[in-house]
Amino acid sequence: MGENIGAAARAMLNFGLEHMCLIDPRDGWPNQSAIAMASGAARVLDDARVTGTLKEALAPFDHVYATTARSRDLSKPILTPEKAMEEAALRAHAGQRIGILFGPERAGLETEDIILANAIICVPTNPEYSSLNLAQCVLLLAYEWRRHSLAASDASASPPKDEVPLADQASVQALYDRLELALEERGFFFPDSKAASMRQNLRNLFSKHALTHSDVKIFHGIIKTLQRVLK
Amino acid sequence: MGENIGAAARAMLNFGLEHMCLIDPRDGWPNQSAIAMASGAARVLDDARVTGTLKEALAPFDHVYATTARSRDLSKPILTPEKAMEEAALRAHAGQRIGILFGPERAGLETEDIILANAIICVPTNPEYSSLNLAQCVLLLAYEWRRHSLAASDASASPPKDEVPLADQASVQALYDRLELALEERGFFFPDSKAASMRQNLRNLFSKHALTHSDVKIFHGIIKTLQRVLK
Repeated sequence: MGENIGAAARAMLNFGLEHMCLIDPRDGWPNQSAIAMASGAARVLDDARVTGTLKEALAPFDHVYATTARSRDLSKPILTPEKAMEEAALRAHAGQRIGILFGPERAGLETEDIILANAIICVPTNPEYSSLNLAQCVLLLAYEWRRHSLAASDASASPPKDEVPLADQASVQALYDRLELALEERGFFFPDSKAASMRQNLRNLFSKHALTHSDVKIFHGIIKTLQRVLK
Repeated sequence: MGENIGAAARAMLNFGLEHMCLIDPRDGWPNQSAIAMASGAARVLDDARVTGTLKEALAPFDHVYATTARSRDLSKPILTPEKAMEEAALRAHAGQRIGILFGPERAGLETEDIILANAIICVPTNPEYSSLNLAQCVLLLAYEWRRHSLAASDASASPPKDEVPLADQASVQALYDRLELALEERGFFFPDSKAASMRQNLRNLFSKHALTHSDVKIFHGIIKTLQRVLK
């Protein structure tokens, strides 16, 4: 809904975040109700990237957090907003590009979307009344982001020095696609009834571990080599 | 405005706060728009205390924080939401009754109101776009309250339970050995001059990412499958 997008833009700008990306917005783009709701934060909307798919949206990021209301049965780190933004601030300080992924108002993110993220953020609400709306969720994350990014940029905090640059999402995606194809050709996804969850687990395996460019290169080498026929 | 009161009730209940007190509400009480907006949190409104003056409202509390958008020229401690709720949680744990005072939507609190509080809370927003609405301000404080009161209440803080058990070193080692052998048979470690560092990088790849048992199982499946000869 346009109103939610506008309210999210305000919540972002309240804590100094300006880069919004919209994925396949339901009512098209630009959206007049979003602009009306954003009031002083309209420039966040003016500058928003709009993509057709989640994969395109995630391509430029080095590390992506997905926000969920309830924990899913995925083997990925589940972090509080605080822990996540503390970590994100260190990553950003070391030059990584960080994305935070929010689901649509009612339904939230699909499991297949969450799988593309590196880690999950779960806001520790009252279990008996946990419904946060989109803009509230954005507000809390933006608040934690600002808190920790200011702390990290303080002169005293030096960046973790041994961090190697991470592979971008597009490279990880290409690696995964290659592996999936190679496995598929060899009948890995069997029986059919389990294929979907096997694909999900496999994708999750490659998104939850933060791979560097050199890791990706090694994996390509492994895949190529294992396919060689032994003489 | 009723809507703001309803939205504030929701934000409170999201983080487990149930005791609302309304001071001289503009449109009288009860207020239908407040109830409509509160939806699932209507019981916070049902149980709300209503007083005619701020002094009556504050009477039962041992320690009161006043929230302000901008710092005032008052000689009172000015705290971030985090610091304030950290302190408040300790006070509450020690039996004190804590109040947090919010101003009306547009104007905020008057200086003469703030003077009645023990300390000031100032939310560190983006100075260029600092307008938080009432419910957002309540949400942030309630969030920080919950975060710190939970921390204070379980002194014997239980370990985070979200972690999936990691694979033991022997399993990871066995996986690595299998992969290394398969790669070696296929001439991966070439040329000889680079073989040692390639082995090191490969081993590192499997040791630096914390693998779960299920990850190890998937990797075994991948290795086995990629070696299948295509027909």
